Amino acid sequence: MDDAKRLAERAAAAMFSRDRASQDLGMKILEMGPGRAKLSMRVRGNMLNGHAICHGGFVFSLADSAFAFACNSHNRATVASGATVDFLTAVREGDELFAEAIEVWRSRRTGVYEVTVTTAAGEKVALFRGRAHEIAGSVIES
Amino acid sequence: MDDAKRLAERAAAAMFSRDRASQDLGMKILEMGPGRAKLSMRVRGNMLNGHAICHGGFVFSLADSAFAFACNSHNRATVASGATVDFLTAVREGDELFAEAIEVWRSRRTGVYEVTVTTAAGEKVALFRGRAHEIAGSVIES
Amino acid sequence: MDDAKRLAERAAAAMFSRDRASQDLGMKILEMGPGRAKLSMRVRGNMLNGHAICHGGFVFSLADSAFAFACNSHNRATVASGATVDFLTAVREGDELFAEAIEVWRSRRTGVYEVTVTTAAGEKVALFRGRAHEIAGSVIES
Amino acid sequence: MDDAKRLAERAAAAMFSRDRASQDLGMKILEMGPGRAKLSMRVRGNMLNGHAICHGGFVFSLADSAFAFACNSHNRATVASGATVDFLTAVREGDELFAEAIEVWRSRRTGVYEVTVTTAAGEKVALFRGRAHEIAGSVIES
Repeated sequence: MDDAKRLAERAAAAMFSRDRASQDLGMKILEMGPGRAKLSMRVRGNMLNGHAICHGGFVFSLADSAFAFACNSHNRATVASGATVDFLTAVREGDELFAEAIEVWRSRRTGVYEVTVTTAAGEKVALFRGRAHEIAGSVIES
Repeated sequence: MDDAKRLAERAAAAMFSRDRASQDLGMKILEMGPGRAKLSMRVRGNMLNGHAICHGGFVFSLADSAFAFACNSHNRATVASGATVDFLTAVREGDELFAEAIEVWRSRRTGVYEVTVTTAAGEKVALFRGRAHEIAGSVIES
Repeated sequence: MDDAKRLAERAAAAMFSRDRASQDLGMKILEMGPGRAKLSMRVRGNMLNGHAICHGGFVFSLADSAFAFACNSHNRATVASGATVDFLTAVREGDELFAEAIEVWRSRRTGVYEVTVTTAAGEKVALFRGRAHEIAGSVIES
Repeated sequence: MDDAKRLAERAAAAMFSRDRASQDLGMKILEMGPGRAKLSMRVRGNMLNGHAICHGGFVFSLADSAFAFACNSHNRATVASGATVDFLTAVREGDELFAEAIEVWRSRRTGVYEVTVTTAAGEKVALFRGRAHEIAGSVIES
């Protein structure tokens, strides 16, 4: 395993241990790499909205976490400045969702990431694009 | 109180009673009108991410709920097709957030809504714009 | 007239004199203020796409120019980092379009602007939101 | 060559012959396929803004045309409902730009397309994502 992948995994483990939100939503980190992250989350009853489908906020949260782990994978503290999401398919209680984030561009201080959210069957649920910028500091001591 | 406002309030009350997500996140509906909704939510410890600030997914969720109540206020079942959000200011545990949604455009089947999320002090936290489309059915029997 | 408005007008006049794109598209600056701009443009035959309606790129260009004049109105050189647009109504040859930009948020280095594009009859054509960041320098010597 | 690719090429040729905007901006169609399009455009002096860089509206226009040709490639008349764009790098007079659009999702009536705009050297200039919906009719008689 190369150094960049190892750094991405260590940064993700440190961030996740402090990330009560992602933990409490039941997210799991499945895979990490430089500029990449893959997470999963199961839709619970208390994630449903008034139409009995998963509230868009939770689909967004999963994508946003994948985005956060991907953009912090270089071990430079980075936060989101904005995002856009297209909701494609309604999701129901019990469905397991997967979010895969990839870095599509990165400059000295900012980056753009694409996140695809799918079901276990591979159906696309949402397409997310986020823009991040670095703040001071690193995620872990490297 | 006019009929459109009364209908908006009744539709919101019915939707909220079925909306476990918004309830469990501690949201409250402060005000409803035709094409408008104002909600609040307090940031809890389990909404914080690995940078010790509110996970963007919960700020988005509050905005998305305000959007949902606003776009269902005409009592025609409506869901989000997409949204874009700009995150302006980091939010911390205990902060109370307010989201105010207004309808900026509506056609026969689709609509566009702007949501501004602010703190109690009136500082802007996030700007959200959502696009909704009607599905079959109404929210309540009218 | 106050100083901020005067500065906005002077910055806009200087920028417009160098802005061959906006000039060649026939745009006119109708009104300037701090964080605000209002422009117009008439849809020409060579702005039509294969469906015989105005190509979205020209509606976007008008909104983008209004955004640019608004975000440079403080006389600090500023460029767009991104934008989102919702197209609401098709526009035809000969229609005169108006774009009004307002600053909805501004921090030390970045800002968010809303632009509404309408017809002469006041019908909404497009909703645009842009994010800008300052680069080095000013627009005019002040 | 398969039928879907042939249909995409025929639809594009017919659309382009009626698309005065894309023609007058000097765009060329380099490649067509089902759900795909690749176009080019050279940045002219009258595409420059007041900062002496290519006006964002023209970068957007190229991406928007690539999107339009891609989403009409199935020979069902389709228009844009909205788009989001991130501007990554400034572009100068004489630069040749390439826009490659791919379909990332398509349902019965709507679709989502990603467009990447690059320079001849392969540097990314802009990332565009558009949402389209079908209107009545086809592009060509098939």
